[in-house]
Amino acid sequence: MAPLPPPSFQPRGSTAEVEGGLQFQPKFDADGLIGAIVSDTRSGEVLMFAFMNAEALRLTLTSGFAHFWSRSRAKLWKKGEESGNLLCVSEVRTDCDQDVIWLRVHVQGAGAACHTGSRSCFYRKLTLPPDPAGVIELARV
Amino acid sequence: MAPLPPPSFQPRGSTAEVEGGLQFQPKFDADGLIGAIVSDTRSGEVLMFAFMNAEALRLTLTSGFAHFWSRSRAKLWKKGEESGNLLCVSEVRTDCDQDVIWLRVHVQGAGAACHTGSRSCFYRKLTLPPDPAGVIELARV
Repeated sequence: MAPLPPPSFQPRGSTAEVEGGLQFQPKFDADGLIGAIVSDTRSGEVLMFAFMNAEALRLTLTSGFAHFWSRSRAKLWKKGEESGNLLCVSEVRTDCDQDVIWLRVHVQGAGAACHTGSRSCFYRKLTLPPDPAGVIELARV
Repeated sequence: MAPLPPPSFQPRGSTAEVEGGLQFQPKFDADGLIGAIVSDTRSGEVLMFAFMNAEALRLTLTSGFAHFWSRSRAKLWKKGEESGNLLCVSEVRTDCDQDVIWLRVHVQGAGAACHTGSRSCFYRKLTLPPDPAGVIELARV
């Protein structure tokens, strides 16, 4: 059998088509990027947020492993390629205006989605209210 | 008692301070915005993603209700102010490099975080693999 063709992202339709339709018409921003929220399929915990360009999104959808575009390094990035903490994608959703992606994943390897070694990049919460000087301290969760 | 002062966002420190420190040093982008993921406190479902400017973030932290900056309307926006679907914030986290916010919320009113009336803006998933022409259909979840 011939391999499947790469995903073809359809042009944006009307607001009604984008919001109510059943065709994937992702919106990339002026830099060619779309934001991607990543959460743990089982626990629901938000693990990270990163950006994808069209190529990263295509590779994610065809390989089943999350790929991103690193803005700081200006390069394509297969998450976990070096650490082994690959993100195996179980579901991909998009939002009403199709300008954000939500990936539900299983983290492989050591189970750390964050480069600091934490399970999630969101390992600190804000302690509220702010102190008398208005400063907000963080606490590890 | 005098009211608490408004939150004061501290200047960015070194990478070690931003990633390992316990002081909130949010990074706003070139447009003065920071992305905010919103999830349901109880179910963990991701509900929406929007942007905040410093004022929207301050109002969120002081009022306990999510405020955003609408890029399309170029105005501050108290989520649910018209619909009644206010987002009551139970926890605020930030990520390793403090350039994204994660709000855990209870949705008030009719419980719809999306302007379309859906509970979540992420009411469609991608059906994979793509069809033989590479087109990706969406399915309501």
